[in-house]
Amino acid sequence: MLQYARPLQRLLNALERLPGIGPKNAQRLAFHLLRADGAEVAELAAAIGELKASIRACSQCYNYSEGERCPICADPRRDATVLCVVEEASDAMALERSGEYHGLYHVLGGRLSPLSGIGHDEINLEALLERLRKVEVREVILATSPTVEGDATAIEIARLVEELAHAGELSATPKLTRIALGLPVGGDLDYADGLTLARALRGRTRVGDT
Amino acid sequence: MLQYARPLQRLLNALERLPGIGPKNAQRLAFHLLRADGAEVAELAAAIGELKASIRACSQCYNYSEGERCPICADPRRDATVLCVVEEASDAMALERSGEYHGLYHVLGGRLSPLSGIGHDEINLEALLERLRKVEVREVILATSPTVEGDATAIEIARLVEELAHAGELSATPKLTRIALGLPVGGDLDYADGLTLARALRGRTRVGDT
Repeated sequence: MLQYARPLQRLLNALERLPGIGPKNAQRLAFHLLRADGAEVAELAAAIGELKASIRACSQCYNYSEGERCPICADPRRDATVLCVVEEASDAMALERSGEYHGLYHVLGGRLSPLSGIGHDEINLEALLERLRKVEVREVILATSPTVEGDATAIEIARLVEELAHAGELSATPKLTRIALGLPVGGDLDYADGLTLARALRGRTRVGDT
Repeated sequence: MLQYARPLQRLLNALERLPGIGPKNAQRLAFHLLRADGAEVAELAAAIGELKASIRACSQCYNYSEGERCPICADPRRDATVLCVVEEASDAMALERSGEYHGLYHVLGGRLSPLSGIGHDEINLEALLERLRKVEVREVILATSPTVEGDATAIEIARLVEELAHAGELSATPKLTRIALGLPVGGDLDYADGLTLARALRGRTRVGDT
């Protein structure tokens, strides 16, 4: 029914496929781009177009990275003896926003979910254990989501780490902590504001203590 | 403070410049694009990149167009004897969404605003009068926004059209109507839903009758 010029319709179709962008929002964005400065529009197109080709997983923590190592792993000011284990790279960025954390990350790329067929080999779990074998880590903060599957993932990681520690396979025996429930239970870590995340980090507890 | 991979930071900067997209929203979109299918991302980049080069103003109504004429002006099923005068192309698209209108449009590209230095020559006003000189139009619907400036623009257009009609300069003497106030006063036409716009169109009144 609606008769848009074809290049405009094409853009609207592409925009409406994005999360949280409905038809009206897409139109708003498209008309903004039509009115906007050409250089701004070209920059947006280039940033999107080159994203995939120029981003890969950090070889150490699996965060998004331009080079071999992500900016956090490459930063000598970060405390390499503390690892924060998160499900997704966006969760690591959410924690960065809190300004409370100065260690490194380990991005699992998911969480254990036997019902969905996601087991130990589907997430970057062995790579985490390998890091702990090689590097002396004094604390592993388990910051998977406060959901049933996120909790189960944290418990399973704690179990595996303790097993390896008892077998004497790790460089050091790390303290295992779980991010505190300042987060709304069942919520998505990525949605939480910086203050809540900061409190959740500060209130972290030893696994087994709660 | 936040340490994103550079290509990701570049995309975030570009996204945050868009209207209604804050830092969190930008991050959500960027992470979606990182996870999304490569073809989908390439299509979005191409749609944005080629937008400016492939879109121009319709030579007749100043709506956005790929060719010389926009899809609405080029459609022989539209009633060419009814013109709806709107401020922006996005307003025309909002009226299209109502499904109530089957005539043509005239996009002013703004509204009269003496305080901002926008006078007769800064909007496509003379082009509208020229259309009325050449083509027999039986009704001009003034659908500028229901704001002080939008109302003033409608009144001024009505005055100019009546002046030319009295001077015998027009092909026909069009009926002049104003879009009805089913719209929330002071609101933005582009935000209205289709039903409200449909009622506003149906309830239109002759200029001077209200």
